[in-house]
Amino acid sequence: MNYEKKSLEMRAKHKGKLEVRLKIPLDNNEDLSVAYTPGVAAPCVEIAKNPELAYKYTIKANSVAVMTDGSAVLGLGNIGGLAGLPVMEGKCALFKKFADIDAFPICLDTQDPDEIVKTIKYLAPSFGGINLEDIAAPKCFYIEEKLKEEISIPLFHDDQHGTAIVILAGLLNALKVVGKDLRTARIVIAGAGAAGIATARLLLHEGAANIILTDRKGLIYEGRDDLNLYKERIAKLTNRQMLKGDLAEAMKGADVLIGVSHAHIADHSMVKTMNKDAIVFAMANPTPEIMPEEALRGGAKIIATGRSDYPNQINNVLAFPGVFRGLLDSRARYVTDAMKVAAVHALSALVKNPTPEKIIPGVFDKDIAKVVADAVKKAGK
Amino acid sequence: MNYEKKSLEMRAKHKGKLEVRLKIPLDNNEDLSVAYTPGVAAPCVEIAKNPELAYKYTIKANSVAVMTDGSAVLGLGNIGGLAGLPVMEGKCALFKKFADIDAFPICLDTQDPDEIVKTIKYLAPSFGGINLEDIAAPKCFYIEEKLKEEISIPLFHDDQHGTAIVILAGLLNALKVVGKDLRTARIVIAGAGAAGIATARLLLHEGAANIILTDRKGLIYEGRDDLNLYKERIAKLTNRQMLKGDLAEAMKGADVLIGVSHAHIADHSMVKTMNKDAIVFAMANPTPEIMPEEALRGGAKIIATGRSDYPNQINNVLAFPGVFRGLLDSRARYVTDAMKVAAVHALSALVKNPTPEKIIPGVFDKDIAKVVADAVKKAGK
Repeated sequence: MNYEKKSLEMRAKHKGKLEVRLKIPLDNNEDLSVAYTPGVAAPCVEIAKNPELAYKYTIKANSVAVMTDGSAVLGLGNIGGLAGLPVMEGKCALFKKFADIDAFPICLDTQDPDEIVKTIKYLAPSFGGINLEDIAAPKCFYIEEKLKEEISIPLFHDDQHGTAIVILAGLLNALKVVGKDLRTARIVIAGAGAAGIATARLLLHEGAANIILTDRKGLIYEGRDDLNLYKERIAKLTNRQMLKGDLAEAMKGADVLIGVSHAHIADHSMVKTMNKDAIVFAMANPTPEIMPEEALRGGAKIIATGRSDYPNQINNVLAFPGVFRGLLDSRARYVTDAMKVAAVHALSALVKNPTPEKIIPGVFDKDIAKVVADAVKKAGK
Repeated sequence: MNYEKKSLEMRAKHKGKLEVRLKIPLDNNEDLSVAYTPGVAAPCVEIAKNPELAYKYTIKANSVAVMTDGSAVLGLGNIGGLAGLPVMEGKCALFKKFADIDAFPICLDTQDPDEIVKTIKYLAPSFGGINLEDIAAPKCFYIEEKLKEEISIPLFHDDQHGTAIVILAGLLNALKVVGKDLRTARIVIAGAGAAGIATARLLLHEGAANIILTDRKGLIYEGRDDLNLYKERIAKLTNRQMLKGDLAEAMKGADVLIGVSHAHIADHSMVKTMNKDAIVFAMANPTPEIMPEEALRGGAKIIATGRSDYPNQINNVLAFPGVFRGLLDSRARYVTDAMKVAAVHALSALVKNPTPEKIIPGVFDKDIAKVVADAVKKAGK
């Protein structure tokens, strides 16, 4: 199947993937008087008196802005906001398909963190939530921190938190299969960008105590003199043995390798040095950090990727539709750690009897978004 | 008919008026691989190489942002961006209904002109056009001027240009009915906000030579010491007799009164002082500057309002859907005076034999948007 060709043809035919549709009739003067003037004045007056009523009378109840500055699109890098539009449209399509959310793509013509913060703040009123996408680290962390105090709707950077949720959900089941414990497992995270750092944080929150992160320059340790603020912070909580060296060094004796690096960086000989019953999550797309065949050759017991053509597809679409459904329905103002963890456990529990080839639900399994949404809502109470 | 009640009920039932829908299937892994990863990378790469291809592969080809800062919503005044959302949603519904355009409401959480300019510039990439709405004068003029050089998609402030187009379209037919000439008719425009100034400009462009504008302080004349920059500019081109006084003064001997003031300000005795076969357009909504019965009592020959319950409803929906359809289809970068005038004449010509009770097409007449779009496209060539 040539997905590239089909993708271009399909998009050229439809000019994208989304359309805006009416939920009300608009066929005569009376309809017009209700939908537009003079009828439209009534909800305006009500909302001016009580802003909360926007959730009762407008699309705000169900709308999400899917926003990017195009600084880190897929594995393509910094291609700019406009060129990221197909990804944002695709994301919006997934929001609708899996959680009936009305999402609209907003691609920014600025990559300055402070201008991005201001722009998101300024356009927040018509949305019920903001999904950030494909914004490079470390500025994605900065933008998220700044906006927490600036807007009254939830903000979720999917490359961070969506990825962290689905990885941890799969990992909990994988550890169960091999009879290991998250608190004692030695976990190597290859990649210290948005996904790597957010995954490390969520694993720490859930009790993991032996994590090592790596970036292009090798292992991250406290005091390494080229770390940005966010790597510095995570360095204080990981690699307490202060190991130095490269990924191969870190993998020796590891129980888990989590690749979130956008690069093909490991081979079977490195997997061979891992602990017995090794777990390998190679999330880089479309080419994983190590191909499943190669990881198997190195003796890995459980392998997961982001791809649909191998078992154990760990895909963010398992998380973000349900997470936002829960956020919107409970009118949450923030995404809390408790909500993320609730989503993790909800996803894990959907696989009743995990096996090496089945540690995570399938993308098209029924009711996933609903189950995740319910968990998020409950955790927010 | 209680439109207020029905409007609130309808909106509470549907949570607004719009939804986002998929134009593509998304039912299995193969669909997912085309719509999202890995297929989605192909159009991103193409657009990164050639930004024009966004019009081929994405929603940009057909999307319009309907934006407000909520500083001048309907006749309600400055109620803020969020409270203006029902109006923006309604506008988006009209865009879809009349011109199959995918419009999305963006309500701003800032009323600072420079911040509005920056925000619009930053979020332009995913849209094919920007429709500004309910932004107070004079900052609406400033924002429009600033953005002309900043974005590569057309920007149209409907309160200015949409209103000017439909008024002039109706006026041309009204003048035809009474056998008067635009170039010599004495025209009073009550209201010197967005609509008043834009209407004056378009009338001047089409040859009107005897226009007087009024605002709350009375007649506008060159040198009046309380005029803003935009009133100063229009004062140099209108009221060449330098008349001073109030609206009643201006109406004496006038052929046409155009009310765009948001206030009930004229009575039959003032209409009585107008020239024979007086034309009265009282556009304030929902309460016109003078009620049609009162204008008739004063001897007016042709009366138009913005209301659907009287003859000659002059409604912006006659113009903006077709204007944007034309702009999008021809991928115009600016809205030119030639395009506006083409829309005017296209609308006028749709009424084959104008009469005092029929100077403008009905909102639901067939093919209006198509005819306007074709005229705009032709004028842009």
